[in-house]
Amino acid sequence: MKCKICGNRAVIKLRAHNISLCEEHLIEFIERRVERTIKEFRLINKDEKILVPVSGGKDSLNTLFILNALGYMVEGLHINLGIGKYSEESQKKTENFASRYNLKIHILQVKEILGYSTPEAAKKLRRPACSVCGLVKRYLFNKFAYENNFQVVATGHNLDDEAATLLSNILNWQEGYIIRQNIKMDSTHPKLVKKVKPLALISERESAAYALIRGFDYIREECPFAQGATSIQIKNSLNMLEEESPGTKLRFYKGFLKQNIIKREEKEIKLKECKICGYPTTRDICTFCTMRERLGSKID
Amino acid sequence: MKCKICGNRAVIKLRAHNISLCEEHLIEFIERRVERTIKEFRLINKDEKILVPVSGGKDSLNTLFILNALGYMVEGLHINLGIGKYSEESQKKTENFASRYNLKIHILQVKEILGYSTPEAAKKLRRPACSVCGLVKRYLFNKFAYENNFQVVATGHNLDDEAATLLSNILNWQEGYIIRQNIKMDSTHPKLVKKVKPLALISERESAAYALIRGFDYIREECPFAQGATSIQIKNSLNMLEEESPGTKLRFYKGFLKQNIIKREEKEIKLKECKICGYPTTRDICTFCTMRERLGSKID
Repeated sequence: MKCKICGNRAVIKLRAHNISLCEEHLIEFIERRVERTIKEFRLINKDEKILVPVSGGKDSLNTLFILNALGYMVEGLHINLGIGKYSEESQKKTENFASRYNLKIHILQVKEILGYSTPEAAKKLRRPACSVCGLVKRYLFNKFAYENNFQVVATGHNLDDEAATLLSNILNWQEGYIIRQNIKMDSTHPKLVKKVKPLALISERESAAYALIRGFDYIREECPFAQGATSIQIKNSLNMLEEESPGTKLRFYKGFLKQNIIKREEKEIKLKECKICGYPTTRDICTFCTMRERLGSKID
Repeated sequence: MKCKICGNRAVIKLRAHNISLCEEHLIEFIERRVERTIKEFRLINKDEKILVPVSGGKDSLNTLFILNALGYMVEGLHINLGIGKYSEESQKKTENFASRYNLKIHILQVKEILGYSTPEAAKKLRRPACSVCGLVKRYLFNKFAYENNFQVVATGHNLDDEAATLLSNILNWQEGYIIRQNIKMDSTHPKLVKKVKPLALISERESAAYALIRGFDYIREECPFAQGATSIQIKNSLNMLEEESPGTKLRFYKGFLKQNIIKREEKEIKLKECKICGYPTTRDICTFCTMRERLGSKID
């Protein structure tokens, strides 16, 4: 198997693109694809300050690294969720990565902000850990970006994530979620920062190969709370179809971004400002502050 | 395992409906569901004459039998495609079924109409057999229905067929096909007969159980030309998801029929009448007559 670009020994075959590549050209291929995605969907500009939520996994490290390599102004934000050893490891790997590549990383501790780690908070609130975690991350990434003059939050969602979420939402006709499942969510409120997914056309496997070849030391374990049987089944189904017809995931998700049959008009949701923290919400008090109140956390 | 209705020994568990049923109540359950589907989506009326395309398989025999049992005016049309022993068997089973249940069946021979069997025509035209078969059936069912004063053509498509086709069309964002993938296609031209799918909410397994319990002698072999790797893969994927989350197929397809997010306005397609046969087409000469000309078949 030879690299299609240089003829040297290829290390990977990408059936969706009908191409085999050596290490060097796989790196180039991925970075160019991210750059083209950014241009094609007008995700970000070189004069915008970009915040990348960094978990310590391959996708978020790749996002931070590639955006920086492409010349974008980028910094990372790691949220330590307080999930025992898993969170310790994640923070350490994130910090090592940042210092190795001279990238700026901010760290927030959920325990300091809520007075409880995420699992402790979930237990106290009798809610699933994943729902508390999602709420905390959504809120803090946006707040941190807004308060520190970032114009964009760029997450590391890959093609497998996006295709599976989209398929799940379509199988259940979750209309609101389908409309909002885009590669770019523009700001709809002065305190709501634009969100983009520059890796959304890069598959899980491509992303892993990139991190591996770059020699990134990323956290490989899944979060111990991640079970997500449904989402795993849906990913398996898509992988089966991909195996049979390479390019299925890309056609499906990219086709979604370009299709013209699903209505795009979101119902105009009137956003108010939370009476406690001032951040956008559809209610009087936002879900984050409601949670803080129920936990008896101090309000900063 | 006991029947939820009568407490007798159940013969089948329908996880999608969270119900176990005995033979008698499975029959009742299926027939009621077909009746409710007809009412809910206003498929047909008791004063309409309905033509059922009958292949000799379980779904088409079920459709003919159930519509008749529910009191609709129904007759069958079997098209003998001339696919060797498979077509002989299919016609024989269809005729036996009709005579056993005193149902009226019409028979057409493709060989008489085209001068060639479907495989012969496909070979001569250098087209896949399935594409010729689809064209021939679509054309002849509509023509026969129109000329014999049927107001509706009711096909035997089941839930597995419909969910798989829908998913395939969505994965590839075939916008035109998605819009038209409905349970009822109203007539858009005086010579285009309305089409409905009364079994579209009955799964493959439910349909097989019905035919089995009724003791129908249906043709079990697949058409020797049916390969359809993609459609089989998609059915497998959906079965995997159904296994994990019973009711997935029904939620997906029924949700599609009721959703409000996919645009329903079909582009106004101006239908003309074919200069040779007079049946609706977007061209000057319809694809069926074009095929007949290329085959040198006599035009009736």
